[in-house]
Amino acid sequence: MSSQEMPRTLKGFRDFLPARKAARDHVEGIVARTFRRFGFQPIETPTLEYAGLIMGKYGEEADRLVYTFEDRGGRRVALPYDQTVPTARVLAQYRNELPRFFRRYSIRDVFRAERPQKGRYREFKQCDIDIYGTRSPVADAEILACTHAAFEAVGFRGARIRLNDRRILMDALAGFATASVDVFSIIRSIDKLDKVAREGVLAELEEKGVSAQSARDALDRVLAAEPDAALGEVMRCAYDLGVPESALEFSPMLARGLDYYTGSIYEVVDDAFPAGSLAGGGRYDDLIADLGGPDVPAVGIAFGFDRMVDAALELDLLPPLHGAAQVLVALFDEATRPQALAAARIVREAGIDAEVHPEPGKLGRQLKTADQQGIAAVVVVGPDEASAGKATVRDMKTGEQTTVPREELAEAVARVIGA
Amino acid sequence: MSSQEMPRTLKGFRDFLPARKAARDHVEGIVARTFRRFGFQPIETPTLEYAGLIMGKYGEEADRLVYTFEDRGGRRVALPYDQTVPTARVLAQYRNELPRFFRRYSIRDVFRAERPQKGRYREFKQCDIDIYGTRSPVADAEILACTHAAFEAVGFRGARIRLNDRRILMDALAGFATASVDVFSIIRSIDKLDKVAREGVLAELEEKGVSAQSARDALDRVLAAEPDAALGEVMRCAYDLGVPESALEFSPMLARGLDYYTGSIYEVVDDAFPAGSLAGGGRYDDLIADLGGPDVPAVGIAFGFDRMVDAALELDLLPPLHGAAQVLVALFDEATRPQALAAARIVREAGIDAEVHPEPGKLGRQLKTADQQGIAAVVVVGPDEASAGKATVRDMKTGEQTTVPREELAEAVARVIGA
Repeated sequence: MSSQEMPRTLKGFRDFLPARKAARDHVEGIVARTFRRFGFQPIETPTLEYAGLIMGKYGEEADRLVYTFEDRGGRRVALPYDQTVPTARVLAQYRNELPRFFRRYSIRDVFRAERPQKGRYREFKQCDIDIYGTRSPVADAEILACTHAAFEAVGFRGARIRLNDRRILMDALAGFATASVDVFSIIRSIDKLDKVAREGVLAELEEKGVSAQSARDALDRVLAAEPDAALGEVMRCAYDLGVPESALEFSPMLARGLDYYTGSIYEVVDDAFPAGSLAGGGRYDDLIADLGGPDVPAVGIAFGFDRMVDAALELDLLPPLHGAAQVLVALFDEATRPQALAAARIVREAGIDAEVHPEPGKLGRQLKTADQQGIAAVVVVGPDEASAGKATVRDMKTGEQTTVPREELAEAVARVIGA
Repeated sequence: MSSQEMPRTLKGFRDFLPARKAARDHVEGIVARTFRRFGFQPIETPTLEYAGLIMGKYGEEADRLVYTFEDRGGRRVALPYDQTVPTARVLAQYRNELPRFFRRYSIRDVFRAERPQKGRYREFKQCDIDIYGTRSPVADAEILACTHAAFEAVGFRGARIRLNDRRILMDALAGFATASVDVFSIIRSIDKLDKVAREGVLAELEEKGVSAQSARDALDRVLAAEPDAALGEVMRCAYDLGVPESALEFSPMLARGLDYYTGSIYEVVDDAFPAGSLAGGGRYDDLIADLGGPDVPAVGIAFGFDRMVDAALELDLLPPLHGAAQVLVALFDEATRPQALAAARIVREAGIDAEVHPEPGKLGRQLKTADQQGIAAVVVVGPDEASAGKATVRDMKTGEQTTVPREELAEAVARVIGA
């Protein structure tokens, strides 16, 4: 057996076993429900696209990270690098079927052949919401309000949205660009303020050839910026839609992939989870046309789902999820099997998740298995219960047992698991 | 722009626009909830695996359909062809972390480079449930009961499970095999009874070299078969778990990928949807070890999700789903915008999906847009309503309008949409 046949996952790719998968499904469910609450409509695009669609859209560095290959029909195909490019295709391809102001969400895995490292994977999930077809500040505010609501619904209490506007940043720095140092280069240095502090930013700017005086002035100028009328309107609309003022923070240093943003830009951070931003987005009125889509303005955000789940688990925001059912129906022996299976049916028909122990065996061992899986209640139908039309419910936390008539079984189980 | 850069999907791959995607999400949600109700635990495996894992498992024909390529690190990698092979890897790789009787579900896309044709796609979704680690008939019955419950929950009334047992079929036909016609070849002909009728089967068997007399005898022998003790026990357990007798049909002709099944075999059919079976599975006690996994017995079923959604739509089983929100909050003008946005907030906080029209504009046009998207209620806050702290709710079906104080808005909207 060659090493490739050893049972293992490719580097940078992951299996999700039940406990982790249940946590992910829980978060994804909340996020999707919130997206629909704000009127975003689901779409799904394929896992394979023409390579010509994916390549050449975000520069050489991104192209090197695209998974691309030739299929059996000789076509160059690729796995999606992000969701914006396939959506641009959808906007072009179904132009006449989509509403004029199209708000869509899309939750799917994207693929980047990056060097694997802690918290960085080659297949990861993005949750995107975007509104196409309007420059209205209401659209920007809807993105902010929906984002705030989704993080709140998952349980994040300290999550806040940092926001800025590309135009404000450009205006503040326009005068500092020189023939050798363009405004984007200055911005990239200033964007590191969080990481390298004021002195670090100034040193880097001087290295790039900005005079010490200019560097200080540029930094001060950016830090002193205030929201302009346009960004102020976005913020007012967001407040009207229910975003608390404390959850929206004007951040004049915020730059984020500035090259294609044309207006507002945002990221979601939570001070309790300093490992990085949890979502990022902004307005990109020219990008869809640049990507081969129709000429429509657009605004949106992408949630970094994997990091969001990491943060939710680390901050203990999720209910206990084991992946397993809440209830195990034990199998005492062959003779009582019909009654045990009927008990399972009763519990399930009451809407409670239940597993049946498939083989009869020592009750102690069945209870131990239940305990290991985090199961809350075990139902036992022994010979006495079977002949009396009863069942026993064991609370796995307290060890307490109650024997009830079959008609009261569902209720008794619900009491134990707190449903 | 080359033809590859034209905005289109690869042949055999699909985009799902909101109405179709909402229907798919609805069905998937019901299926997943039912799986959990029966104690199945979710797992997820990556979209890329080592090619050595995927290839060579199901024969040459299957290998030709695998999407495989070399990644940038020179590794041969492949997209999953089914879920059984990646799960066999999971069972081997995490052997010590998984429960002894592991019941898992997995809902994911698989990839096969088949010739595209009506109803056959190169990327399609499988919903698999399997129980590993036991030969108990309770496990087979749990698969049947969960399958029945899932189809019932989606709304299928006529779905029934046809079942057989590989051993019964082999026993019935063992005497008819000859040096030139093996038992599998006879079975493959008999399996076509539904399609080509009795005369067709007999003709094909004679062509293969079975004498006319033997062919008739073989067919009669199979048709006369009865469930044996083992299959009878599976059926009894399924009845105890709640499967009605009418939903379980012993089908002595049923063969299905017989080569790796070792015991019971099943498929789900609905006479109202004759386009093919909706699910198929059985017991495969040797396959996991053959695939490189541990030596564990296994039983399970795979739902053909795409066909299931097609059937549910064709049989009109789903609630009206447009993808769009139920409510549009109209934007009358800039002056009333704060009140309109506040109205959206109220409706959403009541748990109702609502979209805000992002730009002010003619009300008639906004209503028309709502109508086209299948939106049930439009909320309007004009200048009069704004100054009086009120809002108007329009029922898009009847055209009826009610003006209510803001405090009663959520209730009024809920009445119109029937929530």
